[in-house]
Amino acid sequence: MFFEGSEKRLEIIVTANSARLRLLKRDFWVKLVACANAEILSQVSNQACDAYLLSESSLFVWDDKILILTCGNSTLVNAACYFIQALGAAHIAKLCYQRKNEYQAQLQPTTFADDITVLRQLIPGQAFWLGQLDSHHQHFFCAGQALSQVQSRFSLLMYHIRGELADFLSESGHTAQEVGQRLGLEQLLPRFQFDTHSFQPTGFSLNGISAKNYISLHITPQTHITSPAYGADNYSYVSVEMNVKLDPQMQSVMARLLALFAPSSWDLIGVNQPLNFDGIEPYRILNKGTTTAVTGDRVDFRHFHSFDVEQLVPISVN
Amino acid sequence: MFFEGSEKRLEIIVTANSARLRLLKRDFWVKLVACANAEILSQVSNQACDAYLLSESSLFVWDDKILILTCGNSTLVNAACYFIQALGAAHIAKLCYQRKNEYQAQLQPTTFADDITVLRQLIPGQAFWLGQLDSHHQHFFCAGQALSQVQSRFSLLMYHIRGELADFLSESGHTAQEVGQRLGLEQLLPRFQFDTHSFQPTGFSLNGISAKNYISLHITPQTHITSPAYGADNYSYVSVEMNVKLDPQMQSVMARLLALFAPSSWDLIGVNQPLNFDGIEPYRILNKGTTTAVTGDRVDFRHFHSFDVEQLVPISVN
Repeated sequence: MFFEGSEKRLEIIVTANSARLRLLKRDFWVKLVACANAEILSQVSNQACDAYLLSESSLFVWDDKILILTCGNSTLVNAACYFIQALGAAHIAKLCYQRKNEYQAQLQPTTFADDITVLRQLIPGQAFWLGQLDSHHQHFFCAGQALSQVQSRFSLLMYHIRGELADFLSESGHTAQEVGQRLGLEQLLPRFQFDTHSFQPTGFSLNGISAKNYISLHITPQTHITSPAYGADNYSYVSVEMNVKLDPQMQSVMARLLALFAPSSWDLIGVNQPLNFDGIEPYRILNKGTTTAVTGDRVDFRHFHSFDVEQLVPISVN
Repeated sequence: MFFEGSEKRLEIIVTANSARLRLLKRDFWVKLVACANAEILSQVSNQACDAYLLSESSLFVWDDKILILTCGNSTLVNAACYFIQALGAAHIAKLCYQRKNEYQAQLQPTTFADDITVLRQLIPGQAFWLGQLDSHHQHFFCAGQALSQVQSRFSLLMYHIRGELADFLSESGHTAQEVGQRLGLEQLLPRFQFDTHSFQPTGFSLNGISAKNYISLHITPQTHITSPAYGADNYSYVSVEMNVKLDPQMQSVMARLLALFAPSSWDLIGVNQPLNFDGIEPYRILNKGTTTAVTGDRVDFRHFHSFDVEQLVPISVN
C-alpha cells in the first residue's frame, strides 16, 4: 500500500581526462540503474544531455556529469559503487550522494550510515545532515574538491498537496498527457523538451531538458489509503529539481508550482543559490540552516509551512 | 552518541475479577520491565499507586491498571505479551499500546507493524495512527471495550528546547535535586509526591503521584553532538504525561512548562479531553486530528510551532 516518494540523489562529475560519459553504451546505464533496482522507461536527448525516465525517478547524463534520482526502496548507493568502480575513483572529480529522510525509514534496505560506510571504501568524503531530525532533513555525502565552475541547483519538496490538482492526481487512470497539460510546464518553461510518464494506479514523473539545463518532477499522490473505519490520508509528496539560479523569474515559476499543488508545507534545498527570501504567501519559514561542503558548494535548507490549520485524519493500520 | 527519547506506551486495565495488581510480587514487575529491556531504579508509593522510575522511563501500578512508558531501543511489546500471558487475555478489560514516531526509526528493533502482529496473536484490537507521516505522529493499538469510567489524560511532547533551562540541562553532572529545583514542580503540583533521577552524562526522569493521579516527565537534552567541523545540534525532547483534565488550572501548568522549556515545537495528545484551545503564545497550531477508538476513548492530536525562525546547524555524520 505504501510507496516511499522520498528520493536518494547521486551527482558525479568526472575529470577532464575521463571518458566522455555520453559515449558509454546504453547497456552501461541499464546496468547502472539496475544496481539501484530501477529500470529505464523512456529517453529524450538534446545536444548536451540524455535524460532517462526511470521506473523509480530519473537519470540525466552529460559528457562530464551524471545525476540520478531514485525513490521507493531503491538502492542508489549500489549504483554509485558501480559507477565509481567502472570509471575508477581517480576519475571522480566531485561526488554528492544525498538522501532525504524517509516517511518510513524502517522499510528501507539500508540507512544513510550504511551507505556512507560502503562509499568510504571507494572514496573519502564528508558526511552531514541538515534539517530537523524529528521532521524533514537531508543527508549529504560530499567528495572531491571545489571546481572552478560553480553549479547552482534547487529542489522544491512539497508535502500534503491540496486542492483541485491534488484531487485530480489522486484518482487513477490519467494519461501522462492529461497530467502534463494540467501542470502547464510548456508555458512556464517554453524552451524545454519534456518526457512524461504516468504510473498505475497513480503517480507521475517528468524530465525536461533545455541545453545543459534540466528539470525533474515527480508526484507521489498517495492520498487515498481508505479503510471502512477511516477516510483518506494525505501523505502526498511532490519533488521538483532544476539546475538554475533562483532568480526572480524562477521564483515566479516556483510560486506558480506552489499555487498549483497548494502543499501544506515544503522544503527548499538550494545549492549555490542566492536565497534571500523567507517565504512566498501564504507560507512562512519555520527553520533554516546553511553550510559550505568540502566541495565548496554552499548548501541551504529551508522549511516552510502554510498558516492554515491542517485537518488530520486517523489512518487505519492493518 | 544518539539516544532515542521517543516513548512507547502501554496502558492496561484489568477486569474486576482479576488479581489486584499491587498484590503481585516485585519480582513480577522486575521481569515485566526486563522484557522491555529496562530495569527498576527507584520507587515511591501511596495508598493507590506504586510508581517505579525505570532506566528507560516509568512504570505505574494501580490495583486495576498499569501504565508503562519506555524510551530508547526498548522492546515494550514484549512486556505487553508477558503481562497478557501472565494475567490471561480474559482478564484484560482494556489495552492501549501506543508508539510515537521515532527520531531514528531504522535503529529500532521492531516496527509498530511488527508489534501489533505479535499483539494480535494474543488479543484482537484496532490499530491506527494520527499525526503527520512525514513529521510527528502517534501509533495506537486499542483493545477491549468502553468502560463505564472515562479516564482523561494528556501528553505534552516538547521538541528542541531552548533558553536558560535547556542550556543548563545540556551540561553534564547535575544532580536530580538541582534539576528538580529548576523545574519547580513542587510549587506547580503541591500535593504530589516526587521521585527523580539524573542520568549521566545528561538526561532526567521524574515520577509524581497524588492519590490516583500521576505525572511522568522525561528529558532527553541531547543538544551537544559536537564535531570539529560543526557546532551543537538540538534534537532535545521532553515528554510530560498526566491523567488529569486539561482545565484552566492545568492549562496554566502547561503554559508554565512551555515557558520553562521554550521548545520550538510541541505536540499535545489528549484522551477524553475538552481541547478547545488552538495555541498558547507564542505558539500556533499547524495541524490537528481526532478520532474515537473502539474503546470509546476520544483521542486528539495537535501540533504547535513557535513563530520564531529556528536556526539549524549542520550535523556531521561519522
